[in-house]
Amino acid sequence: MIKPDWIALDWGTTNLRAFAMTKEGRVVARASSDAGMGSLAPDGFEGALLDLIADWLDDRRMPILAAGMVGARQGWVEASYLSAPTPPLATASLATPSTADARLDVHIIPGVSQARPADVMRGEETQIAGYLRHDPDFDGVLCLPGTHSKWARISAGEIVGFRTFMTGEMFTALSQYTILRHGLGTGWDDEAFITAVQDGLSHPEMIGARLFAIRAEGLLDGLLPDMAHARLSGLLIGVELAASRTWWLGQNVALIGAEPLSLHYQKALHQQGVIAPVASAEDMSLSGLTAAHAQMKGTS
Amino acid sequence: MIKPDWIALDWGTTNLRAFAMTKEGRVVARASSDAGMGSLAPDGFEGALLDLIADWLDDRRMPILAAGMVGARQGWVEASYLSAPTPPLATASLATPSTADARLDVHIIPGVSQARPADVMRGEETQIAGYLRHDPDFDGVLCLPGTHSKWARISAGEIVGFRTFMTGEMFTALSQYTILRHGLGTGWDDEAFITAVQDGLSHPEMIGARLFAIRAEGLLDGLLPDMAHARLSGLLIGVELAASRTWWLGQNVALIGAEPLSLHYQKALHQQGVIAPVASAEDMSLSGLTAAHAQMKGTS
Repeated sequence: MIKPDWIALDWGTTNLRAFAMTKEGRVVARASSDAGMGSLAPDGFEGALLDLIADWLDDRRMPILAAGMVGARQGWVEASYLSAPTPPLATASLATPSTADARLDVHIIPGVSQARPADVMRGEETQIAGYLRHDPDFDGVLCLPGTHSKWARISAGEIVGFRTFMTGEMFTALSQYTILRHGLGTGWDDEAFITAVQDGLSHPEMIGARLFAIRAEGLLDGLLPDMAHARLSGLLIGVELAASRTWWLGQNVALIGAEPLSLHYQKALHQQGVIAPVASAEDMSLSGLTAAHAQMKGTS
Repeated sequence: MIKPDWIALDWGTTNLRAFAMTKEGRVVARASSDAGMGSLAPDGFEGALLDLIADWLDDRRMPILAAGMVGARQGWVEASYLSAPTPPLATASLATPSTADARLDVHIIPGVSQARPADVMRGEETQIAGYLRHDPDFDGVLCLPGTHSKWARISAGEIVGFRTFMTGEMFTALSQYTILRHGLGTGWDDEAFITAVQDGLSHPEMIGARLFAIRAEGLLDGLLPDMAHARLSGLLIGVELAASRTWWLGQNVALIGAEPLSLHYQKALHQQGVIAPVASAEDMSLSGLTAAHAQMKGTS
């Protein structure tokens, strides 16, 4: 293969995704592994990276830009947070782990923190930068659904403020490690989802009772597993929308996420009268890493 | 030892507790194991029981009364639900598993179900019966905190209606299987607990954001693990109190539960101006099983 000009890494808690990039910002190869930050000790990162990208290297020193939890305190090397309000990227603040292999020239993008209310992001700032690369004048709210969904106010190219909701991780923990696991399918039911979004939005305090009702209706009324699955998802998203109302009501909202979750949020928002376009999280990550690479080279 | 007159079993999802009882209702021996319903196949129950109580048997046929998840569909034999409104006990409806060992004369107490909203209990009805044995004229609300907390309206010796909240299981799933596990201690902080109860009560919709804030404050502000633990507990109990407001506001409330959880609920309710006495769940179980035994023998 053509050796890349530089390498982009989306290095999260559970996965490592690598992109071999040309000077022009084209992807010539992709690779991924489950060597996420969560499964690595500090001295394991270099080996995990080489395992994935060794074929892309020659004798030259290779510029590598990484975003995500790789820069956390438990990661390879800590990349200090930028403090909101802030532009999403500041390549002057990149963290640089030392490597045994001299060909690796690794730089990690800092996350963003907020003092009050206390909040942090790592990786999403790069997706936001990617979104702003395509729409530099965006003024509104970006919602990034996921394990920890983020709502970020964007104005004048800056992250003005943001708030994280543990919705995705609550879904996983509740569906896998509670009694609900006995009655959840992997299929979907749009009507059950939308009804549950409305339930969550209108009575968020009922979450604990509504969760148990999924189980009770399974036992007493034969609630179908796919409906139970859609209802759990809708209930949690509805509660998030109840809390984030001021972030979307009458606002210019766009979503950045992976399907199908981002489409569920889109549907839930649409039902509240909010038309939110969806951008792919992977595309926005790559676009943000490309923006960071250009900024680092001073060509931005 | 003196051979018991009968044996009481509190047989839940995770534990089996056995009590050797005299004719007069005195406990002469106790035993317990982790042979809960959740870890047993239907043909495993008899063996698990014999493992625990073999020493208490002689040649006679031994009356054994059991309450709890042992009577669930996935249990030893299904004990159909009584339908609320109902007295908590109806020994005419006991389920009787067949046993290979002719000395075992086992009877399982039915749970209680409710059609709208769909809800179920198994085991708590026996604790409620135990409470009513000591206070037959109780008119008010019994709250039974636990994995699945129950709020039950009691009047004229009947369970009029009830509602289950998945609070305890949410606490376990969130504290063990999410990012929160990195920052939770095993200690306690009363002030952090009470503040979190108020937060959960006044803004239950913020649960997802407040959960993540526990993590973010750990990272940014050095939130202490014991405070994080108390805050998680208080937040979830506060959300439950927001949803159960009509069950406790201006009501005559008593708690049945295990310490320390029942004392946390007591403190949270007290802060809302509700003085709720606490009865021990184990004592109430045993008292309810004793009531069932008397009722079965026609001496009630």
